[in-house]
Amino acid sequence: MSELSPVVKLAMELIERPSITPEDAGCQQLMAERLAPYGFTIESMFFEDTLNLWARKGSGRPLFCFAGHTDVVPPGPESQWHTPPFTPTVLDGTLFGRGAADMKGSLAAMIVATERFLSRKPQLTGDIAFLITSDEEGPFINGTKRVIETLEARDEKIRWCIVGEPSSTKQVGDVIKNGRRGSLSGSLTVKGVQGHVAYPHLADNPVHKAAAALTELAAQHWDNGNAFFPATSFQISNLHAGTGATNVIPGEMTVAFNFRFSTEVTADALKQRVYAILDKHALNYQLDWILNGEPFLTAEGTLVQSAVNAVQQVQGFAPRLETTGGTSDGRFIAPTGAQVIELGPCNATIHKVNECVSVADLDLLALMYESILEQTLT
Amino acid sequence: MSELSPVVKLAMELIERPSITPEDAGCQQLMAERLAPYGFTIESMFFEDTLNLWARKGSGRPLFCFAGHTDVVPPGPESQWHTPPFTPTVLDGTLFGRGAADMKGSLAAMIVATERFLSRKPQLTGDIAFLITSDEEGPFINGTKRVIETLEARDEKIRWCIVGEPSSTKQVGDVIKNGRRGSLSGSLTVKGVQGHVAYPHLADNPVHKAAAALTELAAQHWDNGNAFFPATSFQISNLHAGTGATNVIPGEMTVAFNFRFSTEVTADALKQRVYAILDKHALNYQLDWILNGEPFLTAEGTLVQSAVNAVQQVQGFAPRLETTGGTSDGRFIAPTGAQVIELGPCNATIHKVNECVSVADLDLLALMYESILEQTLT
Repeated sequence: MSELSPVVKLAMELIERPSITPEDAGCQQLMAERLAPYGFTIESMFFEDTLNLWARKGSGRPLFCFAGHTDVVPPGPESQWHTPPFTPTVLDGTLFGRGAADMKGSLAAMIVATERFLSRKPQLTGDIAFLITSDEEGPFINGTKRVIETLEARDEKIRWCIVGEPSSTKQVGDVIKNGRRGSLSGSLTVKGVQGHVAYPHLADNPVHKAAAALTELAAQHWDNGNAFFPATSFQISNLHAGTGATNVIPGEMTVAFNFRFSTEVTADALKQRVYAILDKHALNYQLDWILNGEPFLTAEGTLVQSAVNAVQQVQGFAPRLETTGGTSDGRFIAPTGAQVIELGPCNATIHKVNECVSVADLDLLALMYESILEQTLT
Repeated sequence: MSELSPVVKLAMELIERPSITPEDAGCQQLMAERLAPYGFTIESMFFEDTLNLWARKGSGRPLFCFAGHTDVVPPGPESQWHTPPFTPTVLDGTLFGRGAADMKGSLAAMIVATERFLSRKPQLTGDIAFLITSDEEGPFINGTKRVIETLEARDEKIRWCIVGEPSSTKQVGDVIKNGRRGSLSGSLTVKGVQGHVAYPHLADNPVHKAAAALTELAAQHWDNGNAFFPATSFQISNLHAGTGATNVIPGEMTVAFNFRFSTEVTADALKQRVYAILDKHALNYQLDWILNGEPFLTAEGTLVQSAVNAVQQVQGFAPRLETTGGTSDGRFIAPTGAQVIELGPCNATIHKVNECVSVADLDLLALMYESILEQTLT
């Protein structure tokens, strides 16, 4: 067996710690021990059940920040794992274990890149920080969101932020996320009057009344998107009506739906358009909203350019900039004015059994991170 | 306590027998014992779990038939009954017990009316029969349907049939059902492709595709009805889609619907129109049908006229002729060419706890039945 690289060794040490959300299981302590010798001030922020790490070197500006999470999703049925999920195992150049790709491999690459960069003792023109939470896979209430609130309260501003989420698809660096769509969920109850199907004049079928409104919502053109975002999409995820009896007209219908929206609209504008359609169809309804995240975008600038260059240097190809996919903690950091991108390993196995990452990719990722530090801070 | 009438006494004897579908619990035996002395030939038809009684006096034509059922629906929570459901109890002129109104009271009135009519030994111009099942409240497979099949096989034809279903609303005789709408149920599954709401281009939301089709079905004008039937109605009774997760586009949607249809359309025509609408919207679907019953109508003739006269004689007002409401076993008898009507007590308490019937109404009902026998058979 060939010698394992420092990145892979650290990734394995992190995977050994079974940090299922919101547990950190000592991961942040391990990271802090690696950073402290390089002059980082270690600040643990404990909110409710969640441990967060804010490690910062220096007190100047601009501030470069690596962001990520130590928590992992549960391993699922362990019998389906070929190797134990919390016993990191390298087989044929692939590192297996829960969190290998999402995102302990990234955390290890960030640490090693920082160590190497600082070991070369370049003349820094800014600071470096780590914003690490153990509540990214969970309810994301006491994690990055509250750390950012704390930083904002003391006017501590991040200029550039790399989130280590597994953004890549086929080769590490092939995709950089330079933004994310917003996510807005609605929970709709349409009310009618229950009755017997043989006496429809005594009932008021909410399904019949709502069908036309749902048709209009589903057919609605919300926007065209823009150069960075696909068009805003609307999807009904759940729909229920009826008692199970086939001779009863239901008294109400419930509908759950979700918008993934671009920067061409706002959550409030979408809400108003939904209300207008429901009201046009004269529905008697109740509608509750959850704004899971506003959209954010880092269209251009030093960080994007540095990341594109880094991938080009390390891989010999240019990355694609995308804003598709789910939400990430970037949504909490971007509103402070920071440039935020996501760059991490391939995501094919995340949240699945036998999660894994190429050990070569982790080393390449560390080179990319180091290149970005070099370009932005020197 | 005043002396109870023969009708009420017999109704109580029937209620004492706990004949929950498909049990007959001796009710038909009791009826047979009352009819045999008047020259009725008793034929028990046992199909699977269901006992049916075919009692006939004579072998000529035309044949007048009383039809009904001895089975009752379960009593429900007995603690909510003020009197035990199978202990018939008369309180303040009201008879309480499961089946009092649906339809052991009617059975008692039929028997007593027949006894009185035959005791007067009129010159009969036809025969009298009783078609009694213990499977009307259940799956209605081995009851009236199979008795009729048996009669048809031996060319035994009913000319006039009174079904003792509780047709009345405020006063006994205020409503006679002279037909029933058809009932056609559909079970529709619309298929799509499941996926993540963040990647709608990789999924195919069946709710979005089906909403327009359901809107069109709900808005469809199926017919205008006619002088005897209200317009055909379409109702969605159940609708389900989604895994419960709010970020998953459902893979399929299920829809249960029901038609109550007039004699202006046929079940096949309705099916073709539904298929046409689903196909027009290019849905990928599976659709299963259950024809619960074809519509039937006894628009006019000797039976309707006799029944209207009988109500007028006994109550001093004219009944309304209606075809609304649920299905009844009349749907199995009418297709043989018989004139069929339903005339029975008030239906306000049927299928509920504390089911009851006015004892005075049972006596009035027996008078109506006797008058109808007189008008049709002499």
